[in-house]
Amino acid sequence: MTLRPPHPSAQILAFDIFGTVVDWHSGVAREVQTILPDVDGDAFALAWRAGYQPAMRRVMSGEVGWTLIDDLHRMILDGLLAQFGLGGLSETQKQHLNKAWHRLDPWPDVVAGLTRLKQKHTLCTLSNGNIGLLTNMAKRGGLPWDCILSAEVFRAYKPAPATYLGVAKVFDLPPEQVMLVAAHQDDLAAARACGLQTVYIERPNEFGAARPKDVSPDAANSLHAKDLLALADQLGC
Amino acid sequence: MTLRPPHPSAQILAFDIFGTVVDWHSGVAREVQTILPDVDGDAFALAWRAGYQPAMRRVMSGEVGWTLIDDLHRMILDGLLAQFGLGGLSETQKQHLNKAWHRLDPWPDVVAGLTRLKQKHTLCTLSNGNIGLLTNMAKRGGLPWDCILSAEVFRAYKPAPATYLGVAKVFDLPPEQVMLVAAHQDDLAAARACGLQTVYIERPNEFGAARPKDVSPDAANSLHAKDLLALADQLGC
Repeated sequence: MTLRPPHPSAQILAFDIFGTVVDWHSGVAREVQTILPDVDGDAFALAWRAGYQPAMRRVMSGEVGWTLIDDLHRMILDGLLAQFGLGGLSETQKQHLNKAWHRLDPWPDVVAGLTRLKQKHTLCTLSNGNIGLLTNMAKRGGLPWDCILSAEVFRAYKPAPATYLGVAKVFDLPPEQVMLVAAHQDDLAAARACGLQTVYIERPNEFGAARPKDVSPDAANSLHAKDLLALADQLGC
Repeated sequence: MTLRPPHPSAQILAFDIFGTVVDWHSGVAREVQTILPDVDGDAFALAWRAGYQPAMRRVMSGEVGWTLIDDLHRMILDGLLAQFGLGGLSETQKQHLNKAWHRLDPWPDVVAGLTRLKQKHTLCTLSNGNIGLLTNMAKRGGLPWDCILSAEVFRAYKPAPATYLGVAKVFDLPPEQVMLVAAHQDDLAAARACGLQTVYIERPNEFGAARPKDVSPDAANSLHAKDLLALADQLGC
């Protein structure tokens, strides 16, 4: 039997970013299409993102030293450009394209939802993205974070416990006073194993509208919400 | 001959906090006086702050392992309570008093000044204070940072070059695109030695109105401003 407070809440809301807060698929596809009009932007975006977990695993296994996501994105990009037979981009164009991940748009509910949630909670990011990337993205998109936390602060990528527990430690609070907000059940499960509360957010179009993803609830989460406005309703904000 | 652009500016403005952005002296004195009415709050605040540099030096010399400012503040507080002959506080009261440093008020120009500066620049903290302290302070005081950077991120205290250069590295920019804003010439000199631009802000009452401090300009700084509103004027914000 799981004991859980009747009205789940927490002082700190920590947000996953790629997929949960911003729409990486359409943002990256759009930028790829602009700079490489003959390429299938949808397929390129999916391939770029698919390289992300294996690249982080190479860092976390110790095979590669500590590396920021900007640099992992660039390594994956260089591989894809070769694979797609695209040799024509200049170094400046590659650097610009690589920072497409800094220029992703938030989902339509995000700014209004965060603004409401911020009234009663401290809002931070908890992303594998680096601090500069997250700050540029927030400034461009008007995301009102109280604090930007990243794998870069903890020198470990999610799902390492050091990241989830690191948020609690930063705020000198017990883990149950931190609630992870994410659109990925594996991220949430890892956070729960560290004693955090968890909220699942439905983002059925994370991989594009043509490829809807399963957004079924998992009863293990403290809360399940369609989007951040629904979460604000549930938390009474 | 120093070569400097005719209109100094920078993409990133990095702010020192204690003394520059918030009034630690009157904030700490007030909280001490509230919890310990028989104590001279002014003297206690000055003594607490005076313990800060020696405590950080012990960390930076390697004599003590990496320690957050919250914990250094507590070590200094415990020493002062013994020295002032104050044995009567409970553990809860001591913890609360120690977090007086999270509850400091900004100087009157700060919120309006930062709001203007934020239109054209990315604003971050660069303080020896820990991330949780700086976040709580910002939330309470309405300080609109784009990003909270701290000694805690770089695992080094100012004036270590790793802190000033760390800001440039976070944003993937050359050091001259970062401008340190501070009310302390030694902090600014250390930042300049790393290639940052620098602004001196006058805070004559940092140590209390009864103890005005020298706020003379140093021509080595890129800019000198009475307060953050004057800085916004100078930067055309």
